[in-house]
Amino acid sequence: MEKEDWMREALLEAEKAGAIGEVPIGAIVVQAGKIIGRGHNLREATQDATAHAEMIAIREACEATGSWRLENAQLYVTLEPCPMCSGAMILSRVTEVYFGASDPKGGTAGTLMNLLTDDRFNHVAAVEGGILAAECGQILSNFFRELRERKKAARKKNTSNSLENKVE
Amino acid sequence: MEKEDWMREALLEAEKAGAIGEVPIGAIVVQAGKIIGRGHNLREATQDATAHAEMIAIREACEATGSWRLENAQLYVTLEPCPMCSGAMILSRVTEVYFGASDPKGGTAGTLMNLLTDDRFNHVAAVEGGILAAECGQILSNFFRELRERKKAARKKNTSNSLENKVE
Repeated sequence: MEKEDWMREALLEAEKAGAIGEVPIGAIVVQAGKIIGRGHNLREATQDATAHAEMIAIREACEATGSWRLENAQLYVTLEPCPMCSGAMILSRVTEVYFGASDPKGGTAGTLMNLLTDDRFNHVAAVEGGILAAECGQILSNFFRELRERKKAARKKNTSNSLENKVE
Repeated sequence: MEKEDWMREALLEAEKAGAIGEVPIGAIVVQAGKIIGRGHNLREATQDATAHAEMIAIREACEATGSWRLENAQLYVTLEPCPMCSGAMILSRVTEVYFGASDPKGGTAGTLMNLLTDDRFNHVAAVEGGILAAECGQILSNFFRELRERKKAARKKNTSNSLENKVE
């Protein structure tokens, strides 16, 4: 399978998050050509600040292999990882990290900094961004556009309700 | 309670880790003068790369409060946090971070870098290191010294066993 095919699996995870109102980000961990961990963002559903797609996928992969060392593993994630998730990739020693869209606000795999290639830490991963970048970015921008539209409609409804109340 | 008193609670957690053969690091989360999350390193026991003291304490605090936002919370940890744990502190929006010993190999709260005060991320925490630094460092150096001694003794035993086998 090509990198783009694996990223499509991460996108499927992102869609699962979006379907339940979570910011649509998805990740998978691959080892020896098999998916050993899957995750999608569950911050709101779980009210757990650490419930990012990558963390869930890494924890599932550790459980599946019975080891905290995910050597010779590839991680695919639809959005450039934050410091927490980049840190978890270093700790779990994944060999390669592929991400889709860049994150100008918090990306730490090349945008604000690159934690994954900083050789002061005790593991360095190979990083490649831009895999299916358009699709990975689009699912996020669609989500935030729809969120804004829903909020706008809710505000409009509230304003018209309060006007009606005043007339009554 | 003073910062040193809270750090003693984090040290109690570190001791729990050491007692089961884990690198002795402990953390607590405090809100409104109460401990709402406790954690100690459980990487080997769980074989989960993300099972650091701070992560466990943060997740427990989120669960206790029913919210991923740990606003007006203080986090105490015996060792300077790594990128993953610093990232989790940013994401959970803890207000203040106090650590004991500095980590020259991987500390990201002032030593290699300071992720917690980097205002490019969407939350900045106040950081103070060196709280009970000697005790927090000592528990770690004791642990690693004992580990080296055990390994040395095991090697010696193996060598003498293999010599005995040769003689037989």
